[in-house]
Amino acid sequence: MTGAQSTSRTPTLQEVAKAAGVSLATASNALSGKRGVSAELRERVVEAAKLVGYPRGGSARARRTEHVTVGIVLPDVRNPAYAELAHAFEREGQLRDWSLVLASSDYEPAKELEALERLIETTDGVVLSPSRPPRSGIHRLAASPVPIVTCDEPADSALIGASVRTDSFGGGRAAAHHLVDRGGTRFGMIGGAGYLPSTQERREGFLAGLRDRGVADEVVHVVGDVYGMDGGQSAMYELLELDPAVDAVFAVSDMQAVGALFEAQQAGRSVPGDLLLCGYDGIGWTRKISPTITTIRQDWGAIATRAMDYLAGMLAGGEGGRAVLPVELVEGESTRALRAV
Amino acid sequence: MTGAQSTSRTPTLQEVAKAAGVSLATASNALSGKRGVSAELRERVVEAAKLVGYPRGGSARARRTEHVTVGIVLPDVRNPAYAELAHAFEREGQLRDWSLVLASSDYEPAKELEALERLIETTDGVVLSPSRPPRSGIHRLAASPVPIVTCDEPADSALIGASVRTDSFGGGRAAAHHLVDRGGTRFGMIGGAGYLPSTQERREGFLAGLRDRGVADEVVHVVGDVYGMDGGQSAMYELLELDPAVDAVFAVSDMQAVGALFEAQQAGRSVPGDLLLCGYDGIGWTRKISPTITTIRQDWGAIATRAMDYLAGMLAGGEGGRAVLPVELVEGESTRALRAV
Repeated sequence: MTGAQSTSRTPTLQEVAKAAGVSLATASNALSGKRGVSAELRERVVEAAKLVGYPRGGSARARRTEHVTVGIVLPDVRNPAYAELAHAFEREGQLRDWSLVLASSDYEPAKELEALERLIETTDGVVLSPSRPPRSGIHRLAASPVPIVTCDEPADSALIGASVRTDSFGGGRAAAHHLVDRGGTRFGMIGGAGYLPSTQERREGFLAGLRDRGVADEVVHVVGDVYGMDGGQSAMYELLELDPAVDAVFAVSDMQAVGALFEAQQAGRSVPGDLLLCGYDGIGWTRKISPTITTIRQDWGAIATRAMDYLAGMLAGGEGGRAVLPVELVEGESTRALRAV
Repeated sequence: MTGAQSTSRTPTLQEVAKAAGVSLATASNALSGKRGVSAELRERVVEAAKLVGYPRGGSARARRTEHVTVGIVLPDVRNPAYAELAHAFEREGQLRDWSLVLASSDYEPAKELEALERLIETTDGVVLSPSRPPRSGIHRLAASPVPIVTCDEPADSALIGASVRTDSFGGGRAAAHHLVDRGGTRFGMIGGAGYLPSTQERREGFLAGLRDRGVADEVVHVVGDVYGMDGGQSAMYELLELDPAVDAVFAVSDMQAVGALFEAQQAGRSVPGDLLLCGYDGIGWTRKISPTITTIRQDWGAIATRAMDYLAGMLAGGEGGRAVLPVELVEGESTRALRAV
């Protein structure tokens, strides 16, 4: 993006920011009238803009930030994790007075590409939560002038301007430590063959966490290649077949954890009395179900804020970035304590 | 809306449709190049448009239908019923090549109004799924030139161009008949004080259905004024306190039914062995949970199609309408059979 900007005759917002001695974000916010900028700072930025000859109202692109429309492509808003993400973006949009255009890929790469192509034509910036590892088609689109931020998954192409994801490896590791510390002795992991990079990282982190605590490979079973509640249910069935004495299970998503809970309960296991269970994502259901489910919480609000900040920066002619946000283990009843044997 | 149109010097799409001898929808689809219109019909409509002097490409408003952006305001996409609605609208938008802008009211009337005001400025048409009974503020907005369709709830103002809802009364009645036919003898209803008109209609329908079958008022308890899973859980607790022998429960939403299920199971009741349970909405969870939950299914796809049809018609200068779509009882395991006593 900056390469294209440098050939422009018009001073960039970057130059305004430099002249005013403020960050790019502050310069952008000041000129577009956003809240959270003091009158004093705003004046300083406006003066700097005059000084460097920055066009009144900003460049054409910057002007568009006055009412920005952002497209978000995600697999399916009916999946609670994506509903959380959509809600967080929509709320973040409200704060900035930006609009959010929703598009679903339904987990189909062709539809995903189609949605991206449409949004690149009709919006100012696009957030993509990929349903599959990034593909060549997406890389092609990434060369478009409309900034793209990937969310949830690493952007393995340098062409994609920005990515925001959370520390999946660290989250998996924290889950392992927690399950060991709560007395787990025989472990199961649900989500073994998940194809998303984030899933793979959660798996690697979990296995690394078990190794940290000296857990032997023989007492660890990894199963399950289907996402969603159904996938969790059948994976728990498989786990209990493989090792009826399994007493600590980590699912790489909360939806799988919910399915696993139902299956365990149907098989006569008490959670957490007979079986500790930890999910991942931090969807609302984990706190509403009985028992409440321990989970590795992603901060949806922080993800949306960072992604929108990247978009704002890129719309103002700046560069994007790569963020890996922290996650947090939130304890529920599902890992409270195994019954003493 | 038509009053404003009638003063226009430009021929309306209605006149084109009349001259071509086709429906307004067909005329609109033919002129905007949508699929599903035969070449022959399209030619006839184009000829008719020339004949009546309809401007090439349609009026300014009609032109905008070539890439229409529709705003949807709903309480919270994290509620699975609204996620179904958002997904249905988004899918319907894909078919028409329309974009969907998402906005949440978070069940706050002030935010709802703010979102509506914003969408009226930035989109071509708005769908509102109200979080509260329509209020005066909304009626004021309804006088705007941007067409508004209310969804889920009746539009009690003649100013609102169109409304699409489902047969809540009939759905409640069907639930009552089903529970009686499956052997229920002591009844509970969850969602008694729900403030949404649709809730009130479901309640009235349920009580009417019980009366149809000669059920005495003494064996019917109506509780619960809180929506969501938590509301269902506490309502079931209350029901079991009021009448420990209750054996058939209707919840006015699936989320409440899910909460009620957990509570009943925790209280040691088998569903459906000790207790029949029927929800309402038809969200995906009802088919994934164990036991699967009998529900009154709303056809989200049909709702979205009808609402978008109304918007298309109004954008083309036509009138909206009022639709009440049918619902369907979908049997799950939760009403399979009471255990013989």
